[in-house]
Amino acid sequence: MEKVKQRVIIENISPGVNDGEFAAKVVLGEKVKVEADIFLDGHDLITAKLLHRKKGEQEWRGASMYHMMNDRWRGWFLAEELGWYEFTIEAWLDEFKTWTHNLKKKVDTGVDVSIELLAGAQIIKDSMNEATEKNALLEYESTLADESKPLESRIETAFDEDLAKLMHKYPVRKNPIRYERIIPVEVDRKRAAFSNWYEFFPRSAKLDGQTHGSFKDMIELLPYIAGMGFNVLYLPPIHPIGITNRKGRNNSLNPGKDDPGSPWAIGNKDGGHKSIHPELGTLDDFKELIEESHKEDMEIALDIAFQCSPDHPYVKEHPEWFKKRPDGSIQYAENPPKKYEDIYPFDFECDDWENLWEELKSIFEFWIEQGVKIFRVDNPHTKPFRFWHYVINDIKKEHPEVIFLAEAFTRPKVMNQLAKLGFNQSYTYFAWRNTKEGLQEYLTQLTQTEMKHFFRPNFWPNTPDILTEYLQSGGRPAFMNRLVLAATLSSNYGIYGPAFELVENRAREFGSEEYLDSEKYQLRAWNLDEKHSLKHYIKRVNKIRAENPALQSMENLVFHPVDNEFIIAYSKQTNDGKNLILVLVNFDPFHTHSGWINLQLADIAIKPGESYQVYDLLGDSWHIWTGAHNYVELNPHTSPAHIFRIRRKVRTERDFDYFM
Amino acid sequence: MEKVKQRVIIENISPGVNDGEFAAKVVLGEKVKVEADIFLDGHDLITAKLLHRKKGEQEWRGASMYHMMNDRWRGWFLAEELGWYEFTIEAWLDEFKTWTHNLKKKVDTGVDVSIELLAGAQIIKDSMNEATEKNALLEYESTLADESKPLESRIETAFDEDLAKLMHKYPVRKNPIRYERIIPVEVDRKRAAFSNWYEFFPRSAKLDGQTHGSFKDMIELLPYIAGMGFNVLYLPPIHPIGITNRKGRNNSLNPGKDDPGSPWAIGNKDGGHKSIHPELGTLDDFKELIEESHKEDMEIALDIAFQCSPDHPYVKEHPEWFKKRPDGSIQYAENPPKKYEDIYPFDFECDDWENLWEELKSIFEFWIEQGVKIFRVDNPHTKPFRFWHYVINDIKKEHPEVIFLAEAFTRPKVMNQLAKLGFNQSYTYFAWRNTKEGLQEYLTQLTQTEMKHFFRPNFWPNTPDILTEYLQSGGRPAFMNRLVLAATLSSNYGIYGPAFELVENRAREFGSEEYLDSEKYQLRAWNLDEKHSLKHYIKRVNKIRAENPALQSMENLVFHPVDNEFIIAYSKQTNDGKNLILVLVNFDPFHTHSGWINLQLADIAIKPGESYQVYDLLGDSWHIWTGAHNYVELNPHTSPAHIFRIRRKVRTERDFDYFM
Repeated sequence: MEKVKQRVIIENISPGVNDGEFAAKVVLGEKVKVEADIFLDGHDLITAKLLHRKKGEQEWRGASMYHMMNDRWRGWFLAEELGWYEFTIEAWLDEFKTWTHNLKKKVDTGVDVSIELLAGAQIIKDSMNEATEKNALLEYESTLADESKPLESRIETAFDEDLAKLMHKYPVRKNPIRYERIIPVEVDRKRAAFSNWYEFFPRSAKLDGQTHGSFKDMIELLPYIAGMGFNVLYLPPIHPIGITNRKGRNNSLNPGKDDPGSPWAIGNKDGGHKSIHPELGTLDDFKELIEESHKEDMEIALDIAFQCSPDHPYVKEHPEWFKKRPDGSIQYAENPPKKYEDIYPFDFECDDWENLWEELKSIFEFWIEQGVKIFRVDNPHTKPFRFWHYVINDIKKEHPEVIFLAEAFTRPKVMNQLAKLGFNQSYTYFAWRNTKEGLQEYLTQLTQTEMKHFFRPNFWPNTPDILTEYLQSGGRPAFMNRLVLAATLSSNYGIYGPAFELVENRAREFGSEEYLDSEKYQLRAWNLDEKHSLKHYIKRVNKIRAENPALQSMENLVFHPVDNEFIIAYSKQTNDGKNLILVLVNFDPFHTHSGWINLQLADIAIKPGESYQVYDLLGDSWHIWTGAHNYVELNPHTSPAHIFRIRRKVRTERDFDYFM
Repeated sequence: MEKVKQRVIIENISPGVNDGEFAAKVVLGEKVKVEADIFLDGHDLITAKLLHRKKGEQEWRGASMYHMMNDRWRGWFLAEELGWYEFTIEAWLDEFKTWTHNLKKKVDTGVDVSIELLAGAQIIKDSMNEATEKNALLEYESTLADESKPLESRIETAFDEDLAKLMHKYPVRKNPIRYERIIPVEVDRKRAAFSNWYEFFPRSAKLDGQTHGSFKDMIELLPYIAGMGFNVLYLPPIHPIGITNRKGRNNSLNPGKDDPGSPWAIGNKDGGHKSIHPELGTLDDFKELIEESHKEDMEIALDIAFQCSPDHPYVKEHPEWFKKRPDGSIQYAENPPKKYEDIYPFDFECDDWENLWEELKSIFEFWIEQGVKIFRVDNPHTKPFRFWHYVINDIKKEHPEVIFLAEAFTRPKVMNQLAKLGFNQSYTYFAWRNTKEGLQEYLTQLTQTEMKHFFRPNFWPNTPDILTEYLQSGGRPAFMNRLVLAATLSSNYGIYGPAFELVENRAREFGSEEYLDSEKYQLRAWNLDEKHSLKHYIKRVNKIRAENPALQSMENLVFHPVDNEFIIAYSKQTNDGKNLILVLVNFDPFHTHSGWINLQLADIAIKPGESYQVYDLLGDSWHIWTGAHNYVELNPHTSPAHIFRIRRKVRTERDFDYFM
């Protein structure tokens, strides 16, 4: 029989990803809320302490935890620096707290407590060992134990606040228990959790579809992109492009001699993953682009695609890094029956895997040195999980400011695993969730399950690979409502432009999600001043995001029922309740829809019967609503969406109308 | 950098209680369904194996797992013996399966696969090491590798079923991974999961309220109790009762000289927990009661309350087992401001705790030796968790047939912990869930969360301590509908009789849940033949439970919406779908309620528009219903509940009406 006087149980800790196997993600400056079930048998009281430290520190810092309800406790610590923190929890049966608690009940009902006071004196005595304020404690103890003193003054002493403070400072921690695991937390910078992405092919930067664009041309476009409110400019691969088996326009197998090829077929005689495609410019040009983008409060994100064209220097220098077919040829990429003969995947499990992994890591390091701090990683799910775990964690040790976005469109558990391993943001299924039920279910999963601790969604209505049927068929209203959904449901979102703002919706063929004349295989002409451009609408939406902190988080999402399945309604608000946004979107890009919203008043701290202002930040109009049930109507051809800011009344009807 | 070629992830295993820290509970003969998320990066295929064994065995037995959807896998093993089993999971990247899978896609699209066939030959070669059928494999291998043979016959060979079987038998298990924990499963006998309890004070067995009853009198009552369909007869403590500070009628502090005292104040000069109160009879009488009850297919459950009256022999023999107050007196039980001066609790953490724990364990062992296999444990939550873990597990090693019911009415997490530690059944909050919303929420928690794996609810509408306001005020219909709810929602349920069937609903005072003239402190007269007795109703309900296996499980519960908040509707069906029960209960004991039920047809395998028979097993009447929406009406004064058996049509309308 084990000797076991330990009675306290600590379990069900939040935030913990696989119970601390992986780090939970927070942002710099965040109060990290830690919760746990802490309880013991019987009716004795517990004191619990949150122990936390920056990873690598020896000493724990302690923070008090308080009991919320139902044996659930909470404490918090501040994420003051980038990098990893870690925490655990310690708890013990608190004899002094238990004693005063019971004493109070007895005193309140007039029970004689003279013997109980002696028990209290003993508890105080037990606490003296570690105390420096021995004399003060001694005095309390002797008062409680002194039966010659009036009972009333002894009772008063028992409840003395200074005594309580001393006993809290020097607790009698009989058999304290510490949670058996140390839970890591990763602190990222704010942009990991709140970012507006704009994807652009720099080779189209001349905008005429004829002349190859360069970084210099890109610099000219920065004011346009930043002007719409984007703060991450993401470039598809900028490296030399393979010649062998190069793809032509519309993915044809017979390229014209001027066809530039897919930038994802990386490497030729001019270099590989650490080189720049000569027509884009020099490394110095690239650094200038980075600097200029900073002036516009933007960052450059690079696309890292770990694969090679047959002409990549690696193929000659390290043939051992690629898989051979039984006939001795190098295995090209395939997803049967599809073949990608212009691309050789790496063999991550080859005998020389250590050198391969190191070299691939050094590609990130090279670009970090040039000033790139954000990477969009191509198809990470086709590379080993452990490779990412190693590479990302190793890089973050030196560069905790770096942000990795996982471009994995695959099964949910694989996407989750990549996020757990360290990717700071992840692509999602958002593009294909085009019904109210589908979106609500998906967002509930993202924001209400443990996914919220490790998976930061980045919502893209389109990408160079994804022109959904919804966008193909729905015209401008479809683009508008998808934009509003992406930008207000998710705190990270992005568009592939100028295809998006110019409402490019022609697919290569019916039933395909590929763009006609896709920029993946050719230059494109873009008229940024086209009349139907959504640039002003996008600018407005991004301004609303910037000005309303409620839209900069995910966990605060609440759905509100509407009795029309084409209208979705949801709100977000800041913790202090000061910023409260209500969004309504009509999914039907063709017809006006109307319905009654049933606002979940308790979730947004509005009293039944109370009236409040709803101000449409998109349309600059406002209404006074009362209570839960209100009428809404959305015409897709004028305003497929409302983004309301709700202002609760702060004065009564005797004052003038004034809303906070 | 760790050397890691391992790519498969295994997580989220079910059933696992705290990931295998505690045993999941199943019953003898059950197919134990094991599920896990199993996946890897990339597109390769996995083979997974469930490894299981009786605890204590060295060798694992293996069972195939199959992929359900979304990277969730399932396998099962049979719980063939009482006691503990354990399992874990092994999985690996299956090169042969991956190869044939990709080969098929290529062949289907007419790609030249001659080189791929060579790769397949190599995989077969790799498998030969452990194979005894080397020659067969060698032939397959050479056929695939022989480029002189026609391609078609080589392809045919690749998909040969016998080859697939051999490759399944001798898998090339490169880097197989085994789940890091071994998950225990406890196999209980059927009665742990399906039981009908009847609580009776044997001292009232004379039924006249004057003369002290005995085990002999109890034997006379067995046909009455068994006749109602109960199979566990639970007796409050049967030990000598303390004299010091004995409680009188209605919990008064001044007992009359004939007052028998509370049977939970255990022990006097006649003995303690291993003795029998002399007025009840001898140990032989008790054994006779056990034997006679077996003849009625009933078992005796004893109440084990680990506490002592001041007169208990332990108090003299082992004063060190009790806590002292500072004045040297023994600390009585209290829950301030309440005092229980007739009861001394044990000090489970005393210096002599090991001997104390052993002695307490020996109390169970003593009664097990007399033939008792079911224990209802009084207030286990006021004793250390670890005590129960030790005692229950130690006893079950020798006596896996023993059933422990935890009488803990306390906070949810404490109740859960006791169940995890080994209690086979648990009292619940059922008595206080008297609204549709409250019951649905509670039952969803019990049957749809991980609680289903460790917490077996036992539903009691009343106990000697609990006469709810609902029963006090609702008259006979309230008793009827609470009975139906307990007996059909939970596969374990019980009543405290004859108070229940005789509709005893007088409380000691308004606002109290204590019975007036509670049997806890006095004998009671019961007229079992009273006209308003529910005994026939109870018998019918228990017969329905016995005859309909759907009611003998919990996890199969499905709620169906009714547009009247006073009517609850739910169904249960067996795995094979053959037994399907639909229960409707009117919560309002005063008024007739009606409404439309919206049956969740998909959950009960009925097609929209299909008609089916609903047969009321309580009322012996039947209807033909069609589709989801049907009208129901319940008059509490005639039938506050329906228990329908649903029979789906098995012939078309061209045959005569015939229901399976």
